[in-house]
Amino acid sequence: MSKVLVFGHKNPDTDSITAAIAYAHLKQQLGMEAEAVRLGEVNDETAYALEKFGFEAPRLVKNVAGETDGVILVDHNEFQQSADDIADVKILEVVDHHRIANFETADPLYYRAEPVGCTATILNKLYKENDVEIPANVAGLMLSAIISDSLLFKSPTFTGEDRKAADELAEIAGVDAEEYGLAMLKAGADLSKKTLEELVNMDAKEFEMGGKKVVIAQVNTVDINDVLSRKKELEDLLYRVIAERELGLYMLAITDILNNDSTVLVLGSESQAACGAFNVPLEDNLAVLKGIVSRKKQIVPVLTEALAK
Amino acid sequence: MSKVLVFGHKNPDTDSITAAIAYAHLKQQLGMEAEAVRLGEVNDETAYALEKFGFEAPRLVKNVAGETDGVILVDHNEFQQSADDIADVKILEVVDHHRIANFETADPLYYRAEPVGCTATILNKLYKENDVEIPANVAGLMLSAIISDSLLFKSPTFTGEDRKAADELAEIAGVDAEEYGLAMLKAGADLSKKTLEELVNMDAKEFEMGGKKVVIAQVNTVDINDVLSRKKELEDLLYRVIAERELGLYMLAITDILNNDSTVLVLGSESQAACGAFNVPLEDNLAVLKGIVSRKKQIVPVLTEALAK
Repeated sequence: MSKVLVFGHKNPDTDSITAAIAYAHLKQQLGMEAEAVRLGEVNDETAYALEKFGFEAPRLVKNVAGETDGVILVDHNEFQQSADDIADVKILEVVDHHRIANFETADPLYYRAEPVGCTATILNKLYKENDVEIPANVAGLMLSAIISDSLLFKSPTFTGEDRKAADELAEIAGVDAEEYGLAMLKAGADLSKKTLEELVNMDAKEFEMGGKKVVIAQVNTVDINDVLSRKKELEDLLYRVIAERELGLYMLAITDILNNDSTVLVLGSESQAACGAFNVPLEDNLAVLKGIVSRKKQIVPVLTEALAK
Repeated sequence: MSKVLVFGHKNPDTDSITAAIAYAHLKQQLGMEAEAVRLGEVNDETAYALEKFGFEAPRLVKNVAGETDGVILVDHNEFQQSADDIADVKILEVVDHHRIANFETADPLYYRAEPVGCTATILNKLYKENDVEIPANVAGLMLSAIISDSLLFKSPTFTGEDRKAADELAEIAGVDAEEYGLAMLKAGADLSKKTLEELVNMDAKEFEMGGKKVVIAQVNTVDINDVLSRKKELEDLLYRVIAERELGLYMLAITDILNNDSTVLVLGSESQAACGAFNVPLEDNLAVLKGIVSRKKQIVPVLTEALAK
């Protein structure tokens, strides 16, 4: 078999980029010819982590079927979040921590999902199960992923298993997780210089809910006005996206990483249903979701149920 | 949360019944209130194994949403093979060794699939990972599942990991795997006294392939004439099933467990395409698939690809 490509989701976040690097490294140690690649641009937070631990960004790919017949997915499984031609290749393995949807294979595979806060937490177990030591710089990347996915250990997705993994990885990497983590989050949270297109594509994921296409994007910031000061232009852009992609809902969650609330810009035919699901009023296309920081655990399940009705 | 129900697929085979018992036992040891149940009748082979190791059959259920809000699936994931109301309950975990298809959740879950020959082989690992000892009688059931799924270690689905697990489990159970295994297979292979309905429902699984509904049933025998002597009545019955359930294909694989070939009765609009995929002629609705004993590894992938065209 040709080289196996290992990659996370489109619009990759720190977990998707670093899980690809960390799992490709493990598979290489186990004798597989594996290469970490990425399906999109590296964001500022991830760039900070890669530089800190001395890594180049993985190679950017758009399609995968042309160069391999075997792939490993990390940090995602839904086909619309994966490579455009994912249905044309054999999926050998998945390591993930999300719900399972719009995913199927013709053959049995290795699928390891756990309801934890970060793919890195599962990879930490897989290194142990395979008796492979985690190099200090790879441990640093894995720690970065846990910090990113948990907003420095504060998200409700953060479990005791993530805590244990973070402590072990910080020890191996030799960094102070709190100090390094805040610096990394801040590096990714300066939105003032982002173009509108960059903003909405930083971390946008598409879902299918109740037969409708839904996009939920999320940005982290220390000042939501970096985004809201451009609300009118954002709406113009997103209404066009909704029309072009025939979306029933576009939700942009602007998450304040200091107070852990999210302000959501909600557009599309399902916007009232969406806000109804959270019992909050939608005013001027905006709503405030107090204490909500996790798309996966606090937004996707609520919307999935509401739109199924 | 109410009691968690653990079950395998409809038309349960030995792996589905015993995996439910073995995994429910493990979860109980870990503090979960779990009960093994089953979605269909216990076949003769499984009954032999249960009696040998001193177990009652798990409780029969049809629907699950009425009595629990959390379930664990073993040995399957495709919804059409699961409880009729599977979409109405929360799937907490899946432990399986099949392809993934027609499966989705709203929330993250624990999903453990490995491309091995038997669920019991994965359960053997999970007992170790959780530091729980396998009781001798549970080990006997798990060994029975590996023998059943591998046709006494001869199926191409049988991997080195299954071999290792079978050896460990035989040791714990204190049985001679070859001797016990042949007796168990023979107990399940006497088809002469089965009614037609029993025959076709012993191990029938439904799939969706290329937008068409397909049923692939399999029976093991030491004399294929126990089945073929009733071919005309079988066809009458299966044509009615095809019409009622709007199937594109019904394939009944009659597997000779002594010479490891399967004779297939193939009916439905896709029957020519199905036999074309195997490069064998279809004569009088019958074809012989030499060396083919595994639905999962040797039949489903071939048909999935052929019907997708």
